[in-house]
Amino acid sequence: MSQPAVKINASDVAAPFSAAMKEYVRTELRGIGPKLVGFLANDDDSARKYAEWTGKACVRDGIRYELREVPKERLQEAVEDANRDPEVHGILVYYPCFGTFPSFYGGTMDDFIRDSISIKKDVEGLCQYYRGNLYRNIRYVDDERTQKCVLPCTPLAIVKILEHLNVYNFAQPEGEHLLGKRITIINRSDIVGRPLAAMLANDGADVYSVDINSLYLFRRGKLIECTETPEEAAKKSDVIITGVPVASYKLPLSWVSEGTVVINVASHKNVDEAALMQIPGVKYVPLVGKVTVAMLERNLMRLYENFHMKPRKMWQ
Amino acid sequence: MSQPAVKINASDVAAPFSAAMKEYVRTELRGIGPKLVGFLANDDDSARKYAEWTGKACVRDGIRYELREVPKERLQEAVEDANRDPEVHGILVYYPCFGTFPSFYGGTMDDFIRDSISIKKDVEGLCQYYRGNLYRNIRYVDDERTQKCVLPCTPLAIVKILEHLNVYNFAQPEGEHLLGKRITIINRSDIVGRPLAAMLANDGADVYSVDINSLYLFRRGKLIECTETPEEAAKKSDVIITGVPVASYKLPLSWVSEGTVVINVASHKNVDEAALMQIPGVKYVPLVGKVTVAMLERNLMRLYENFHMKPRKMWQ
Repeated sequence: MSQPAVKINASDVAAPFSAAMKEYVRTELRGIGPKLVGFLANDDDSARKYAEWTGKACVRDGIRYELREVPKERLQEAVEDANRDPEVHGILVYYPCFGTFPSFYGGTMDDFIRDSISIKKDVEGLCQYYRGNLYRNIRYVDDERTQKCVLPCTPLAIVKILEHLNVYNFAQPEGEHLLGKRITIINRSDIVGRPLAAMLANDGADVYSVDINSLYLFRRGKLIECTETPEEAAKKSDVIITGVPVASYKLPLSWVSEGTVVINVASHKNVDEAALMQIPGVKYVPLVGKVTVAMLERNLMRLYENFHMKPRKMWQ
Repeated sequence: MSQPAVKINASDVAAPFSAAMKEYVRTELRGIGPKLVGFLANDDDSARKYAEWTGKACVRDGIRYELREVPKERLQEAVEDANRDPEVHGILVYYPCFGTFPSFYGGTMDDFIRDSISIKKDVEGLCQYYRGNLYRNIRYVDDERTQKCVLPCTPLAIVKILEHLNVYNFAQPEGEHLLGKRITIINRSDIVGRPLAAMLANDGADVYSVDINSLYLFRRGKLIECTETPEEAAKKSDVIITGVPVASYKLPLSWVSEGTVVINVASHKNVDEAALMQIPGVKYVPLVGKVTVAMLERNLMRLYENFHMKPRKMWQ
């Protein structure tokens, strides 16, 4: 008899990480957690909300948090100051700041700011250094393999959710935990869809990456052109992840097979929830934000241990 | 009375660098220069010619050179092998290999290969780490400011040519050697025009960057939208650098004021040479390739000193 669909609350996934952080700060760091500085350089309401929300979560878990509001013309300098300041252990910028305005560098100014954050302080794991290592499946900062790279927060949150749902098979060796799994990701942004595809492919999955114009198969660091339609790819997938940033997009439910894990990472609901919950065996995660913040804290602690603690300790 | 135009031979600029390298290898390194590995992964005739040409120059100057021909499917692995090999001190890939084929990473596969080269071995100075430092005007690899970053070879060759022609004013402090100079660059590629604009702007110049669709002013790390036409920008420039990769493009000579330095960095001649030489005081550099190769050798030596010599020596 088939199982009913279930809905998974991100809080259940985030809670153990948050609790472990709190306990670690209390016992190992004697109550003085690392310091995260957030930069707000816009009038964007949702950026401000995200800033308040990350700040509260950090303080709750024992992390020192300071929000610095700067005019965008001063942002780059302010980030460089924080890069150099030994009292700052992590830096987070709330985008968008410049929107699509181009930079000297070639990409947008926001891309440039993102790449300007020191690798010792990039809690989002999205600067060029960590991106480059992620795509090349280089998992350590150092040749001795003692200091792990940080990974981008939202994709890492999805990994932790998939671990929580036992999609990861830890009986298989490292790099093969997702062997035999097919995963469709409807989003190929440089912030979420693409790094997530890389991480899941690095762990052995076949990842179908869907955007508005194309479908690629990512497998172990290689991009493979494929002839399936997005519908065919989704139907044979164990996991479907949607990240379409428009209110009008809804995942066609004919694409979802019984027993599929469906994760909505977009700020809009990409799924007709009531109808989805009629499909037997589906596991549905409507929101991932709380896990993302937990991963941000985790990245902060990893950076703190890699680059600030002497002697270094190994947390998680 | 106005001076006649003169034509400058790149060999004259390159020769002292080449001679210094040869002498340094002979005396300081007892004849055993660092080892450069070139990767050829295509059937492109001009790539093969460039490979032969760099190889000959290296051997002439005491650098050990090995050309490795690999199928492009094996290129990434071969580059990673060379990254790890302590006997290899520099890596050079002859592009194009994959052309415009996209990578997992987001850019092209050629971009991805470029970014995969270790910062300890990237003689072209074009991997993301050195690019990022260049655009942020970070001139050293280390916090102690003892190990200088390498800079991309072709843009660096232009700098050396401008130094040779006394456009640089070394009476002014570092970062201001080009203060008061206006320079127009007709090319905004990620390989030549854009990093060159950054380097010249880092040294204090106002740089007009022209491409087919737009004109920007680059000044000290900032991109400024401007209202001049390319003709107006060129006319008031002390230096015009052309890098248009098509045979049909010719720089309109009405854009060139008396006394201008004109440098052709394209493989095609972007200038009607006979007519240009009629403009009084013009200094014209028709080819830069020999200086580029000298800079490649110089980068190799800098990487060797930064990351391989113990105790480190300071060469140049």
